[in-house]
Amino acid sequence: MNTVKTVRELRAAIARARAEGKRIAFVPTMGNLHAGHVALVEKAGQRADFVVASIFVNPLQFGPSEDLARYPRTLIADQEKLVAAGCHLLFTPEVEEMYPQGMGLQTRVSVPSLSEGLCGGSRPGHFEGVATVVTKLFNMVQPDLAVFGEKDFQQLAVIRALVRDLNMPVQIVGEPTARADDGLALSSRNGYLNDEQRASAPALYRMLGRLADAIRGGETDFAELIDSGNAELIAAGFRPDYLEIRESNELQPASANDQQLVILAAAYMGTTRLIDNLAFDR
Amino acid sequence: MNTVKTVRELRAAIARARAEGKRIAFVPTMGNLHAGHVALVEKAGQRADFVVASIFVNPLQFGPSEDLARYPRTLIADQEKLVAAGCHLLFTPEVEEMYPQGMGLQTRVSVPSLSEGLCGGSRPGHFEGVATVVTKLFNMVQPDLAVFGEKDFQQLAVIRALVRDLNMPVQIVGEPTARADDGLALSSRNGYLNDEQRASAPALYRMLGRLADAIRGGETDFAELIDSGNAELIAAGFRPDYLEIRESNELQPASANDQQLVILAAAYMGTTRLIDNLAFDR
Repeated sequence: MNTVKTVRELRAAIARARAEGKRIAFVPTMGNLHAGHVALVEKAGQRADFVVASIFVNPLQFGPSEDLARYPRTLIADQEKLVAAGCHLLFTPEVEEMYPQGMGLQTRVSVPSLSEGLCGGSRPGHFEGVATVVTKLFNMVQPDLAVFGEKDFQQLAVIRALVRDLNMPVQIVGEPTARADDGLALSSRNGYLNDEQRASAPALYRMLGRLADAIRGGETDFAELIDSGNAELIAAGFRPDYLEIRESNELQPASANDQQLVILAAAYMGTTRLIDNLAFDR
Repeated sequence: MNTVKTVRELRAAIARARAEGKRIAFVPTMGNLHAGHVALVEKAGQRADFVVASIFVNPLQFGPSEDLARYPRTLIADQEKLVAAGCHLLFTPEVEEMYPQGMGLQTRVSVPSLSEGLCGGSRPGHFEGVATVVTKLFNMVQPDLAVFGEKDFQQLAVIRALVRDLNMPVQIVGEPTARADDGLALSSRNGYLNDEQRASAPALYRMLGRLADAIRGGETDFAELIDSGNAELIAAGFRPDYLEIRESNELQPASANDQQLVILAAAYMGTTRLIDNLAFDR
């Protein structure tokens, strides 16, 4: 696996793969890779001949009070995992390579509606930062397909919309959330948790499962479900950020008639913000 | 020349040209073509093997009180001019083909700073509409290069910035403004003028030339020059919209030290808004 830090080297390496007729898949990440990322890279390898990954902790998608500075950087370990997963090329740009004009004057890509509420409500500007960097990375790599985890459900919806709306010739593939044995969604931010917090954290996914079971069992009082879900989170030591039931295609608030639903939640365990979701058919 | 109306047909025709190893140039237009557009297509043909033009009157870049509905549509005459200029493929999508989800939820591309002031001040949202449709068209066509007229000086600067900021693999080529014998910049909107207005309209470019001559002659009182320029426009029957002297790279207000300048103006003749500019080195 070759690791490159500049757009020029990236384009040259991809041009060589293209010239050999290879189909190209792309997995953008922020690094600190876990088994969830490995699954994305393996999925990419099943769908294409040449797998490109990127590691870039994108400052444009972090708010001023968020964890940009302490977000874990673990490049050597990440490279080993990527090699084992079958990645062919890794792009690890510095901020100056991605935003050579600075970020203030950077052209922005924004996806209305889908970017509002949920994580977009808690993290103003977050999805504009995501949409902008993904557009840049897609234009740098020009992959045939790109693989994203379903753990970031709203992010995946935003990216599908921007690709559709801007006619980008990239197929977007979603990969189910990888989980620990106790159900906790794998996340780089799990590393912030102490032992006690880690032991309590699976309550987030348990709660989502209980609510989904209740809805599949015929429960229609969503407001009551949300109240009980938040109470369950608080009892487990979480401070809830949001908990919502949406239809899973356009992420609009779920109505009584919607069959395809997703329950999305974000909650703080100490200072660590965890997110998770569960999509299901009623 | 083949004319296609759908993205699917467009991509198929371009894929055939690509498979033949052809270099592709693109000239996006709003139709009602004049000698200025013809020069863009001819320039494209000098730089590439396969020339794609588009005609799309983009509603996203028109304000609610602007001339979207009455903007001239002259497809048959346009096709004849494009064939004569050496165009190989014409894309004429309907609004529904460009914005199948409607325009309200459309992902937007915005270029800060450069989009503000000048035409962006007079036409709020105009350059977001331009940047969004150009991004879409570039992703549909994936040209090696695209040719734009320098008459829309601010638009050209916005497009250069978005291509740079979003890392789009497209070379942007500017083509000098085509003018009538009396100096009036060619524009589809000139067709709105009656004979008397048309006879007065060259005063716009004459004024730009006089101001540029004065600056090259050593004049440094830009505020006085602007006042006299506006007075000259009013005397010729114009209602000035803006008249500004900027440095020509980042379009920031010109300072005493800037060597590369551009004078930009917009003014109404009756209800018709005309724009022009003159870039020069001090």
